[in-house]
Amino acid sequence: MAYFSKHYHNPGTAPGTLVGKADGGRPVNIRVLDYTGEEVEEVSLANAADCRAYLARDSNTWVQVNGQADPDTLRNLGDLFDLHDLALEDVLNTGQRPKIELYDDQLFIIAAMPLYDGENLEIVQISLFVGRNYLICLCPLDEDPFEPVRKRMRMPNNRRFTTRDVDYLLYALLDLIIDSAFPVLEQFGYQLEEMETDLLERPNQQTLSRIHGLKRELLLLRRVLWPQRELLTTLMRTEDELINAGTQVYFRDCHDHSVQIIELLESFREMATSMLDIYLSSISQRTNETMRLLTIIATIFIPLTFVVGIYGMNFEHPDSPWAMPELGWYYGYPMVWFVMMGITACLLWFFRRRGWI
Amino acid sequence: MAYFSKHYHNPGTAPGTLVGKADGGRPVNIRVLDYTGEEVEEVSLANAADCRAYLARDSNTWVQVNGQADPDTLRNLGDLFDLHDLALEDVLNTGQRPKIELYDDQLFIIAAMPLYDGENLEIVQISLFVGRNYLICLCPLDEDPFEPVRKRMRMPNNRRFTTRDVDYLLYALLDLIIDSAFPVLEQFGYQLEEMETDLLERPNQQTLSRIHGLKRELLLLRRVLWPQRELLTTLMRTEDELINAGTQVYFRDCHDHSVQIIELLESFREMATSMLDIYLSSISQRTNETMRLLTIIATIFIPLTFVVGIYGMNFEHPDSPWAMPELGWYYGYPMVWFVMMGITACLLWFFRRRGWI
Amino acid sequence: MAYFSKHYHNPGTAPGTLVGKADGGRPVNIRVLDYTGEEVEEVSLANAADCRAYLARDSNTWVQVNGQADPDTLRNLGDLFDLHDLALEDVLNTGQRPKIELYDDQLFIIAAMPLYDGENLEIVQISLFVGRNYLICLCPLDEDPFEPVRKRMRMPNNRRFTTRDVDYLLYALLDLIIDSAFPVLEQFGYQLEEMETDLLERPNQQTLSRIHGLKRELLLLRRVLWPQRELLTTLMRTEDELINAGTQVYFRDCHDHSVQIIELLESFREMATSMLDIYLSSISQRTNETMRLLTIIATIFIPLTFVVGIYGMNFEHPDSPWAMPELGWYYGYPMVWFVMMGITACLLWFFRRRGWI
Amino acid sequence: MAYFSKHYHNPGTAPGTLVGKADGGRPVNIRVLDYTGEEVEEVSLANAADCRAYLARDSNTWVQVNGQADPDTLRNLGDLFDLHDLALEDVLNTGQRPKIELYDDQLFIIAAMPLYDGENLEIVQISLFVGRNYLICLCPLDEDPFEPVRKRMRMPNNRRFTTRDVDYLLYALLDLIIDSAFPVLEQFGYQLEEMETDLLERPNQQTLSRIHGLKRELLLLRRVLWPQRELLTTLMRTEDELINAGTQVYFRDCHDHSVQIIELLESFREMATSMLDIYLSSISQRTNETMRLLTIIATIFIPLTFVVGIYGMNFEHPDSPWAMPELGWYYGYPMVWFVMMGITACLLWFFRRRGWI
Amino acid sequence: MAYFSKHYHNPGTAPGTLVGKADGGRPVNIRVLDYTGEEVEEVSLANAADCRAYLARDSNTWVQVNGQADPDTLRNLGDLFDLHDLALEDVLNTGQRPKIELYDDQLFIIAAMPLYDGENLEIVQISLFVGRNYLICLCPLDEDPFEPVRKRMRMPNNRRFTTRDVDYLLYALLDLIIDSAFPVLEQFGYQLEEMETDLLERPNQQTLSRIHGLKRELLLLRRVLWPQRELLTTLMRTEDELINAGTQVYFRDCHDHSVQIIELLESFREMATSMLDIYLSSISQRTNETMRLLTIIATIFIPLTFVVGIYGMNFEHPDSPWAMPELGWYYGYPMVWFVMMGITACLLWFFRRRGWI
Repeated sequence: MAYFSKHYHNPGTAPGTLVGKADGGRPVNIRVLDYTGEEVEEVSLANAADCRAYLARDSNTWVQVNGQADPDTLRNLGDLFDLHDLALEDVLNTGQRPKIELYDDQLFIIAAMPLYDGENLEIVQISLFVGRNYLICLCPLDEDPFEPVRKRMRMPNNRRFTTRDVDYLLYALLDLIIDSAFPVLEQFGYQLEEMETDLLERPNQQTLSRIHGLKRELLLLRRVLWPQRELLTTLMRTEDELINAGTQVYFRDCHDHSVQIIELLESFREMATSMLDIYLSSISQRTNETMRLLTIIATIFIPLTFVVGIYGMNFEHPDSPWAMPELGWYYGYPMVWFVMMGITACLLWFFRRRGWI
Repeated sequence: MAYFSKHYHNPGTAPGTLVGKADGGRPVNIRVLDYTGEEVEEVSLANAADCRAYLARDSNTWVQVNGQADPDTLRNLGDLFDLHDLALEDVLNTGQRPKIELYDDQLFIIAAMPLYDGENLEIVQISLFVGRNYLICLCPLDEDPFEPVRKRMRMPNNRRFTTRDVDYLLYALLDLIIDSAFPVLEQFGYQLEEMETDLLERPNQQTLSRIHGLKRELLLLRRVLWPQRELLTTLMRTEDELINAGTQVYFRDCHDHSVQIIELLESFREMATSMLDIYLSSISQRTNETMRLLTIIATIFIPLTFVVGIYGMNFEHPDSPWAMPELGWYYGYPMVWFVMMGITACLLWFFRRRGWI
Repeated sequence: MAYFSKHYHNPGTAPGTLVGKADGGRPVNIRVLDYTGEEVEEVSLANAADCRAYLARDSNTWVQVNGQADPDTLRNLGDLFDLHDLALEDVLNTGQRPKIELYDDQLFIIAAMPLYDGENLEIVQISLFVGRNYLICLCPLDEDPFEPVRKRMRMPNNRRFTTRDVDYLLYALLDLIIDSAFPVLEQFGYQLEEMETDLLERPNQQTLSRIHGLKRELLLLRRVLWPQRELLTTLMRTEDELINAGTQVYFRDCHDHSVQIIELLESFREMATSMLDIYLSSISQRTNETMRLLTIIATIFIPLTFVVGIYGMNFEHPDSPWAMPELGWYYGYPMVWFVMMGITACLLWFFRRRGWI
Repeated sequence: MAYFSKHYHNPGTAPGTLVGKADGGRPVNIRVLDYTGEEVEEVSLANAADCRAYLARDSNTWVQVNGQADPDTLRNLGDLFDLHDLALEDVLNTGQRPKIELYDDQLFIIAAMPLYDGENLEIVQISLFVGRNYLICLCPLDEDPFEPVRKRMRMPNNRRFTTRDVDYLLYALLDLIIDSAFPVLEQFGYQLEEMETDLLERPNQQTLSRIHGLKRELLLLRRVLWPQRELLTTLMRTEDELINAGTQVYFRDCHDHSVQIIELLESFREMATSMLDIYLSSISQRTNETMRLLTIIATIFIPLTFVVGIYGMNFEHPDSPWAMPELGWYYGYPMVWFVMMGITACLLWFFRRRGWI
Repeated sequence: MAYFSKHYHNPGTAPGTLVGKADGGRPVNIRVLDYTGEEVEEVSLANAADCRAYLARDSNTWVQVNGQADPDTLRNLGDLFDLHDLALEDVLNTGQRPKIELYDDQLFIIAAMPLYDGENLEIVQISLFVGRNYLICLCPLDEDPFEPVRKRMRMPNNRRFTTRDVDYLLYALLDLIIDSAFPVLEQFGYQLEEMETDLLERPNQQTLSRIHGLKRELLLLRRVLWPQRELLTTLMRTEDELINAGTQVYFRDCHDHSVQIIELLESFREMATSMLDIYLSSISQRTNETMRLLTIIATIFIPLTFVVGIYGMNFEHPDSPWAMPELGWYYGYPMVWFVMMGITACLLWFFRRRGWI
């Protein structure tokens, strides 16, 4: 459904209720990446409870859960990492607005990653829990969108990354999430340009439908990107001990991108609205031109038809000199043509003076 | 009445005046739910004054008054629980905007619960008084909308609920009130989608009327939902002793929902406004197409009619070679057809080049 | 004049200049109501200077001046109660925006009371001076709009009113002024509803004119109601010694009404704007329908007229088989009818398929 | 030029560069008014340097420079009164936005005075330098707009004015500048009213052009009046030693006027925008009415013309009973009339039922 | 591409990645201007590393890098002046929004200089690094836009410039960048004026296209000018030791210009939007006029054609007095003319009364 994509429990349901989706049959894929400045270890886990081993270690642990999370996995993770019921409910009920919540010694972040295949815009909800030495990232997609980050961590020279705390990992993931709006907007930009050409050259119902669709998607995108910017403002300014001062300059950069994305979005929205006006003006202009053509044709031929109609009348009275004597004149017929050409010439001159032809 | 649904006293009436409605004949239904961590007791009372017994006890008491409250009941409650005259007046004069007021050792809250049956949107005013160990909830509906909460409290395993103070009960009720906007918006979303299809495929007066109606209801809804969000912001941040710090995380969640609802509402409003533009554009486009058809038909047949009109003229002069000699030509008639087909061909070619046919 | 109703002196006039209006011939009506908790005394005064007697007493005095105040009366009042020149100028030059000004030991308030008779909206400027034990209220109307307050003060059981300070009297007057917007908005609401029906059923120039007029009046109303709300915010929060803490809860109630009125007003304005769009759409839709009818009629009859025109031609050549042989066929005439009915049937089928008929 | 009236130096020019205008040939007119509580002395000076004499005295000096200031005069004044280069540049490059700048012991103010002659709106830049005991006012007009102030100062009873410091003089000048917007807005108000009548009664291209022109002028006016209000807010709140506390109540009054002017302006702007919509609606409504007339005429006469066309056909076959036998009927001709009147009656009934006639 | 001109790395790329553009083949041009109060030295460098010599001296050094910077040059500069990786990435990925960032002992500024050649608007990103005694300015253009500043520094009398710190140089450059928007807006102003005339006199599709184009460029310009204003607000208020208090008055002047530019821009945007409405109204007005002409012509001639059609009918029945007896009347033909002229006169009178002719 295009307008309402939020999952919600029935009003009156107890807070923190976790109910799986009807079609949530596919198993989730849990990948753990445990790193210190010295080494990076990657494993796939069958069960959320197996993370316990990494939690105790003096290393940073990135737990990535891909796929539609089922209530059991969430409950396991919740017990293990001491996650709040309300947060788990938000993870399950996708379609949340991006936000950041500070629990005692944990950050809970919901971010939104836009994906666009040229036709449909999908907003993927990424949920992140950040603790002192772990980061849990839940993504409902089956394939891992964070592979580029993983790749950078695996590279031999990247001690710059692995020697830092998990807040830098958080930055890396958020940066990827934020920046994924750029290709989406680039595509929207191309579409706007196409529409613009269409609008002025050949406006039709389909252009209208496309502009409307784009406007709807820009609105949808905006609904998640604005709170995402606030999220970054909070991160950039927070004085929580989980966020190092040295990482804040990176969050500032990320915030910058976020602002730029929103400004692009807003100007796209404005142009899309303006295009609706232009569509209407173009159509009116075309109607006007059509009307002119009709008026020219009708204004020239209707009087002429009247003239020839006159001489189609059958008045005849052998004795009356008033019974259409023109019909009997020697030059009657050429004179009618002459009159008609005169009328036509006058009208053509009139239309030319008004700039219609 | 669709635009003005506020009850008010005549200007100059003394503050705190309680006057029953003309049709307020039905008796109210008073239900008390008294709970401690150990037990939950439910009774129906005939008279508001009977609440006194529960007030003295060391337990939490939820007094639920369903139905259109009459002045006497309100005065009884007011005397018993020491409620402010202005607050009671607000309870009686429904159509108030949601608000929270802090009296000495009491909170007074007005909330708005939207109900939508697919045709009419009704905003039900819920009035709440919260004291140290009691909560009074007045709802003008005859049937109790808070039955789900009652059910959760009755469940054997729900000590999590009953061991808490009345602020948690307040949260439970407000959460239900806020969340009841989700199904309403979901229905509005479906309607928008339907209208969108109608607009582009078969715009008509009825679609226009529906968009207008939806816009009006969104506006009505917005008028109560914005102050309701402010109410929750206040609750979330208040440092009153009636609200425990541990409950504030729940109010934060509730506030989150409230923000999400408003953002949905605003984007619906924007889409509804955009749809009016699209309606206009669609209609103009259709007028344009109608005009084209008329112009094509008229432009082709009017000159032809003129041509055949010419040869319907009755010029005849036995001796004049100028008296429509064509009529007497051997191939006169086919030639006229030939000329007319030529004209038609030219015009068809002209229209095709312009992309009209 | 509808757009500019402000009285002003020529630029460069000295501040505090008091000039009477050209037509200001009617005498003002000065009524004093002097009250303590024990008794309420009412007198009519001929001269503003006679108030002096009440000023000295240890009672609260309400001086009500009804009618268009002349400069002399104002100067007398000003001397007696030590009113600022600029304030007196504002009293005389009606059409001021509502405001509150704190002088040393005096409050000066300008409020705006809307009156609507179904046709014209009038904004009456009420000027109030509040001192420690007196309140002066100037109202340009001839009859006293505050009679209901006076009545409440006269009632035997109303010690609740008379034992309080003049700030409560100020509240009572402001409450009446604010609440007098409710009946006005109620009438506007009914008008909007009427217009809405008209718009969708029979849009015409008059509806347009009414919507435009309503919009103008809403704008006028809004121009005074917004600053009036700010005025109440100030009163609600002020820590001046003239306003008791116990009265502030009443001002809060008044502020609440004020906010509600503004929200209603804003949604009316939005609906009125939306109605202009709907008017335009309705008209376009009607033009479209008119066009369709014309197109159907013209498209059917123009070709038929061409056909009958053909057989009105006078080709005749006794020897030529090409000279309209159809005219001489046995079934010529029925065949023409057959052809014409065929054309009509095709066109009707075409229009039905497009959903036009 | 209507849209861009700012004077600026080429980008990269050194700050404080003073270049005279090409046409700046007229000499300026320097008038000094020196006053104490005891006496008021007025002189005209030939040279800016001659002000020096007054500067040393223990009196207040008002230096008024009328006419397009040339760089030399400005440099002289600048040297004498120690004016900042950037301020002098702003005086010369007219078209600045109103602002207030606090230099060490000097205030620099740029204000904008609107003048309207019914056709063109001119914004005159007034530059003011205020020191401890002098005020310099530069005005590019040739005649002095501040004559009314001068007149008040000359009056015998006006010690209230002359005993005060120069900040009161500043108030008097600013008050005149601000209030000069009232007559301008009054004229705009009349024009709006005229346009409104035109719009609904006889919309035409010229009305459109006037609305557009008014909108442009309101926009221009708004661009200077908003910063002027901020200027007054600053003056009203400043704690600079150049502004006495006793004068601030006057600046508050002035600020009040400024707010009122802006509110009027904004509502005019809104009405002008609304009028564009009404223009469009009116035109559409007229097109609709025109269409209806055409459709009624065409729908009635086109079928009738077809009918009479039928009996203009020349089918004749002496032996065939099918060759237009109607032509030979005894009542043929009246029957045709009967049929045609029947058709007309039906169509008229149809149009009446639709409410078209 | 008109809508999306931002360069960005693929989401997930490491921060501070420097990748040259595909076409970035041209060598950059590095010019150093080293100045003290005594002397000004200018050199062109082949290699960024050669700046090292100037860095050590006790003079102010302005390093100007013109042309599309390649990653190597940037890395060299970065190593030499200790520039942050994220800043260098921003220099390379042009299309950033203007901003100011405070690193430990360095300011990093991105500014946007608009260039307009009458057809295309180009936004040039200028990157500035300011340290204690150096300023690095990177500009992707091949020719140096800051030549006017260089010229002022070379002038013999300009010790006012060279004796100051680099913050004054920063001001001089920013002033030039900001002020370069004035000529752009001046051109836009002229275009608006042209369009306005076109709109009201001869609206056509091309005008529409130009308005739309201008709106897009104003939007683009606005997207960079707003953050540029914020940048100047920061500079004006910053208490960083790199900015002297004496220079802040210059930044204030610069900020003033920035505000003025934005206000002009916003009013241009508003007028452009208003022009779209006027275009639509003009077109509708023209359609209306076209319709009127058609209606007048059709309404006059269609009934006349019907009349002449009547007497073209061939009813003849030798014995029937009903078989079009008019045809045989003595004054039949003149009477028809008389009737037709009567009809015409009535219609002309009708049209004149409605004000159509």
